[in-house]
Amino acid sequence: MTTTAARRDRQRQQLVEAAERAIAEKGLAGLKARELAGEIGCALGALYNLVRDMDELVLRVGSRTLARLDVTLDRASQAAFSAAPQDAAGRLVAVALAYCAFARENPRLWRTLFEHRMAEGSEVPEWAVAEQMQLFRHIMAPLADLLPQAGDQQRFLLGRTLFSAVHGVVAIGLEEKLVAVPRQELDRQIEALVRLVCAGLAAEPRLIR
Amino acid sequence: MTTTAARRDRQRQQLVEAAERAIAEKGLAGLKARELAGEIGCALGALYNLVRDMDELVLRVGSRTLARLDVTLDRASQAAFSAAPQDAAGRLVAVALAYCAFARENPRLWRTLFEHRMAEGSEVPEWAVAEQMQLFRHIMAPLADLLPQAGDQQRFLLGRTLFSAVHGVVAIGLEEKLVAVPRQELDRQIEALVRLVCAGLAAEPRLIR
Repeated sequence: MTTTAARRDRQRQQLVEAAERAIAEKGLAGLKARELAGEIGCALGALYNLVRDMDELVLRVGSRTLARLDVTLDRASQAAFSAAPQDAAGRLVAVALAYCAFARENPRLWRTLFEHRMAEGSEVPEWAVAEQMQLFRHIMAPLADLLPQAGDQQRFLLGRTLFSAVHGVVAIGLEEKLVAVPRQELDRQIEALVRLVCAGLAAEPRLIR
Repeated sequence: MTTTAARRDRQRQQLVEAAERAIAEKGLAGLKARELAGEIGCALGALYNLVRDMDELVLRVGSRTLARLDVTLDRASQAAFSAAPQDAAGRLVAVALAYCAFARENPRLWRTLFEHRMAEGSEVPEWAVAEQMQLFRHIMAPLADLLPQAGDQQRFLLGRTLFSAVHGVVAIGLEEKLVAVPRQELDRQIEALVRLVCAGLAAEPRLIR
């Protein structure tokens, strides 16, 4: 690698880290190109030699958030598996609770994963799509144990439904909306929701046909 | 009522309707006091003789949205009751599907109910709290039929959890996020989610103890 390329890589890394700090402190709306350029000591225009646009920068921050979330979910899932290898529902509960804990500890970075929208006419690049889809394995693997007879398409849809449902309880709960589950009850309600769905699957598997 | 008071009431009504149209077209971020004043033909400062602040205006629009949502949910619930008076789960499904349909048809007004935050230091006034809570009866009544033995507190928490879960599936689904349930599958997945939870409650009622 030439010295110039190495320097640009280092600066890009600094830029992404500065953007991550800004989002963690002030949320997505607090991300200002001019301030970031000042922080890493480059001209405003030179920023766009490091990333194509602000969308790419936000996606690179999201990539770091997802990687940390992935580690958290993996750890929770493995701990649950070690404790009770046969209890696929318990694994789903552990993943859902770890998701809630991550959101609670990283509220602005987590919210940015959902708030960010690409500029008009731009599509999310393939690498970012692949990273997001990657995390679904934490849901899909226990679902495969719970529903060995189901088709891929049914499991895929149920996995997304379950994710969205838990996400809804977490998102409304952490924002402490009037209609929310109170914060101190969140973990118990998330566990109840996941366990009820799993008990429903066991009692009436025809419901997802 | 004096002529002046009647005139102010009429103007307030016009203001709320203009704000509703603006939010329906452009979302909460598209609400501009100056444009509204222009539209109803009053000075910018005079707006604040009609409503205390923009928060009150947004809440008054929200009040209209909630009233329409209430009618929609009521109709769905009653139709389900007429079709099958014993099927409390079916009533919950009907309410959830009506909620999704309302969100689909009123995307920006519906989203405003959740996006709006009071100005720093202000609290949601009592009348607005009461209106929001009012809508929970569409969930709480069928839950009471499903769980005659449960305590009020358990039912109250489960009602919020169920609402948040369905809301999550609808919100992520309608935004067509990568991780969302695809739009054309939304209704079936919402029904599956609610039915699975109800089947879980029937099979293992201890899960919510």
